[in-house]
Amino acid sequence: MEELKQRIREQGKIRGTNEILKVDSFLNHQMDVGFLTQIGREFRRRFQDCQVDRILTIEASGIGIACLAALAFDNIPVVFAKKNKTKNIAGDVSISQVESFTQSKRPYNIFVSKEFLHPGEKVLLIDDFLANGSALSALIDIAGQAGCEVVGAGIVIEKAFQPGGERIRGQGVRVESLARIQAMSEEAGVVFA
Amino acid sequence: MEELKQRIREQGKIRGTNEILKVDSFLNHQMDVGFLTQIGREFRRRFQDCQVDRILTIEASGIGIACLAALAFDNIPVVFAKKNKTKNIAGDVSISQVESFTQSKRPYNIFVSKEFLHPGEKVLLIDDFLANGSALSALIDIAGQAGCEVVGAGIVIEKAFQPGGERIRGQGVRVESLARIQAMSEEAGVVFA
Repeated sequence: MEELKQRIREQGKIRGTNEILKVDSFLNHQMDVGFLTQIGREFRRRFQDCQVDRILTIEASGIGIACLAALAFDNIPVVFAKKNKTKNIAGDVSISQVESFTQSKRPYNIFVSKEFLHPGEKVLLIDDFLANGSALSALIDIAGQAGCEVVGAGIVIEKAFQPGGERIRGQGVRVESLARIQAMSEEAGVVFA
Repeated sequence: MEELKQRIREQGKIRGTNEILKVDSFLNHQMDVGFLTQIGREFRRRFQDCQVDRILTIEASGIGIACLAALAFDNIPVVFAKKNKTKNIAGDVSISQVESFTQSKRPYNIFVSKEFLHPGEKVLLIDDFLANGSALSALIDIAGQAGCEVVGAGIVIEKAFQPGGERIRGQGVRVESLARIQAMSEEAGVVFA
């Protein structure tokens, strides 16, 4: 998606080499809802050959993107996986563990109430980033536990130099990333795949 | 907002007396984006006498509501306060502490990058629930640190039997809650204010 690449080039802040890309001016801290509406329409275009009954995402940065995408899919329901088991969630939940590759963080569980994922439903996964793929794998696991069919994953930015995309595609899951970054560094900027 | 009250009556799950109300079938786990679009329009109607430059909310459940509301405010930017300081956020941030009234939780910090709140801007706060008001107070604090003017707070559901709404209105902040719950119990259901 050309406008997305342009935004990443212009507004993305790179730290290190193939490490951190901050796009918090439009995607995951400040959110440009007009642009995210276009991103939602692009996901719809890419998955127009599929029936999609429901969007599944993960808190926090996935939620806004998923909600605006759901508008483009004729207002299908969004469900977001939660990261902490609070006392407000009770009853039957599907749980999966997300490995974390940031130094400071430990693996954590995400969960979805079984009420909101139904056997046989066709589910589209949405997230802002795909890097090591641990969050996406956990969403695939949760959808599978619920007996849903994953029609694919719509990702805004894929760090193609990290192994998540290849691994998950290798499992037969269709992954549509709107921008795939081959390499990036503070000196050379972003090289798209 | 009549349809919201009806949804709460029909789909809300009450635990205890004046304790927990689960509305995760449409608001904060599964999200009904068509209905949330209507909620966004209602916020716009309530604040139509105000200039609003930006929406400020807090992760996670506020994000989807804020994004859909922003569409009704002609695509103004949304900023969401984050709950954990990860290595992807660096530089100048405004921080405030949120007290937590759930037994299992400790106070936690939320933060917003100073880049995304500008002195003199008119900010509308959006959140799903108002109960003790600790999250909303922290957002007001952060907006104040940035020199923004808070035009008000748009809340989907206010637990009017808890002190947050009264306290924050007492500070001169305009609070518009689309449903105000006077009392609720498993036996008697929900009584709206």
